[in-house]
Amino acid sequence: MNIAILGFGVVGGGTAEVLTKNKDIIKSKTGADINIAKILDLREFPDSPFGSLVTHDFNDILNDPTIDTVVETMGGAHPAYDFSKAALEAGKNVVTSNKLVVAEFGVELLELAKKNGVRYLFEASVGGGIPIIKPLISDLAQNNIDRIAGILNGTTNYILTQMIENGTSFEAALKEAQAKGYAEADPTSDVEGHDAARKIVILAALVSGKLISPEDISVEGITSITSADVALADKLGYSVKLIGYAEMDGDKTLAFVAPRLVPRGNPLCDISDVFNGILVRCDMLGDAMFYGRGAGKLPTASAVVSDIIDIAAKAGSTPASITWKAATESDLLPLSDYKTQQFIRISERTEPAIGTLAESDLGIAYLTDAITESEAIELCKKIEKSGIKVLNRIRVL
Amino acid sequence: MNIAILGFGVVGGGTAEVLTKNKDIIKSKTGADINIAKILDLREFPDSPFGSLVTHDFNDILNDPTIDTVVETMGGAHPAYDFSKAALEAGKNVVTSNKLVVAEFGVELLELAKKNGVRYLFEASVGGGIPIIKPLISDLAQNNIDRIAGILNGTTNYILTQMIENGTSFEAALKEAQAKGYAEADPTSDVEGHDAARKIVILAALVSGKLISPEDISVEGITSITSADVALADKLGYSVKLIGYAEMDGDKTLAFVAPRLVPRGNPLCDISDVFNGILVRCDMLGDAMFYGRGAGKLPTASAVVSDIIDIAAKAGSTPASITWKAATESDLLPLSDYKTQQFIRISERTEPAIGTLAESDLGIAYLTDAITESEAIELCKKIEKSGIKVLNRIRVL
Repeated sequence: MNIAILGFGVVGGGTAEVLTKNKDIIKSKTGADINIAKILDLREFPDSPFGSLVTHDFNDILNDPTIDTVVETMGGAHPAYDFSKAALEAGKNVVTSNKLVVAEFGVELLELAKKNGVRYLFEASVGGGIPIIKPLISDLAQNNIDRIAGILNGTTNYILTQMIENGTSFEAALKEAQAKGYAEADPTSDVEGHDAARKIVILAALVSGKLISPEDISVEGITSITSADVALADKLGYSVKLIGYAEMDGDKTLAFVAPRLVPRGNPLCDISDVFNGILVRCDMLGDAMFYGRGAGKLPTASAVVSDIIDIAAKAGSTPASITWKAATESDLLPLSDYKTQQFIRISERTEPAIGTLAESDLGIAYLTDAITESEAIELCKKIEKSGIKVLNRIRVL
Repeated sequence: MNIAILGFGVVGGGTAEVLTKNKDIIKSKTGADINIAKILDLREFPDSPFGSLVTHDFNDILNDPTIDTVVETMGGAHPAYDFSKAALEAGKNVVTSNKLVVAEFGVELLELAKKNGVRYLFEASVGGGIPIIKPLISDLAQNNIDRIAGILNGTTNYILTQMIENGTSFEAALKEAQAKGYAEADPTSDVEGHDAARKIVILAALVSGKLISPEDISVEGITSITSADVALADKLGYSVKLIGYAEMDGDKTLAFVAPRLVPRGNPLCDISDVFNGILVRCDMLGDAMFYGRGAGKLPTASAVVSDIIDIAAKAGSTPASITWKAATESDLLPLSDYKTQQFIRISERTEPAIGTLAESDLGIAYLTDAITESEAIELCKKIEKSGIKVLNRIRVL
């Protein structure tokens, strides 16, 4: 099978590396014989063994009838979306690691794939190298899934791990993450939760069949999390994690991204550094978790290649195609009704106490009973009226 | 697709329940329309909605040309193996939850399946409901896997969790597990490690293509583990877990089952109660872990049904078949060369110290540097010669 890679950066280069280094094992385990025919990039790679495959013109790939599958590892919305669309319309399968394009244009691209009898696959768009998309739609298909909670962003998990384990401040931990190459120069998309938002809407769509726009869900990042939050949460038996969360109730879905207090004993609690974990609640199986490297060159490329193999292995058959609808407002459950315990860090003790107290030289916090989001907002207003400052509020998972 | 279930006990009954309760979601997600045509059991089930499907004669199923797939959930070696063999020879797919039959007769049954153009699938034989077999052979096929370490037995993990969290003795924890239905009246197969041994040889075979007989590997259970071991390990930063372990080096495999000290930070460390976790080391992806319920009616049935769906979904195509060879002695690496740190609990301090000391009112233990198994045995002999008793030795993972 001939493929073309669009974008020879980290993931595209990794894809070529996995396909080359592990060519033999791929062939022997799956029968797939995958050949990189062309690579699209604006740059030249004279020193790369793949240098001679580089073209600067997408039409060279689009019009090459020997290319079955286009691997989009460019990142960004455009031209990644446009090239994917053109490839699908030309009857080529598309494999992508681009969560932005899947979260924004997934409905249309899956529809196009179906119409043209080809496939649009995106295992690498969520959880890096962790097999999660295929298990979710195939191995767990005999289960009703009513909840997904995931540590979906490695950068923020690295920062929080430093804060938890070493008492580092958010700012210092972010700088460390940047120095190690785990965070980008502009870390907004990670630390503000937008990256996790794209991933949770993709996971929710795989369960519900409805793709929610990442802009339509509540997204909080970790920039407001302090060493005091982390230390007081620890005293109460919790670790603070950025959680992409989706709850399915009948036809409706609640999805949001926020820092959460994860209790000890929950398998997400101890996932550290850049690792990701996705906890899925199934009606027959119960809880299952998938854990591994959520980012990085070879892990992400591993997932890209698993999709390429899937296409090669199923060539000639007609595998079930995914159909998504765009979620409308009536498909969404409001966050205001969501009920959970709340961690409320305040400037001084309340009288009477609003929950279990945790105190250290870093501050004071309470852990309330389970209350709805609206009730929590009311409670905080009331506290502030009494002259006590609410310094942070974090929901419990 | 018409199926027959052999053995209407816990897993067989659960399979019927999953197929019935989730018939709609299975159909809508995978297109598979699965019909239970016959059930083999010695008993009658007059009160079951499936009662009318029961037959006492396997030939009723074997000779029914409308039955495509036989689901073997009988347990035990015979007649489970014999019926599976006959079904494959009659051109029927076989799905099983029976690790004993897979570990003992897998080579022959996979060969028979291939010869007859049908499939022999066993997702439920390892890790209960956790998707592990299909991810291992399909989603991770682009990786060389050189190590698998798994908590593969829920009963022993429940017992060890009670010992770790509540300081319970082994005997008391076992009784509790029996009272809760997690351990059988005769718990030998679980607590002596034989169940885990069957599972690790299956996992290793999926990687290496060679099935090792469970009798050819070193198997230690948890009956020698005491509260002192668990408490001293905890002081050193480890939890004690029964680990099925396989290491692949080129064409050769080292496999064994033993209690191990799992360091904090390792995702297997905090897996508690009856949960299972399987940690797989991949050359491209890095570490990945699969976590979930490793036993129980509906979790195990969930895995059985995932295989049935896989057959239904691929009907008409020719999916890659697994081929195993029987491992010979030359395929095995000896445990004597295996090098790791050792936890050695002794009657009194050694002079000089043989490693990092841990001491409590429950006893004394050392954590050595990494040494080979042979060296560890030598060390223990030397200690005993000096008049100090070696009370237990546990390898570090």
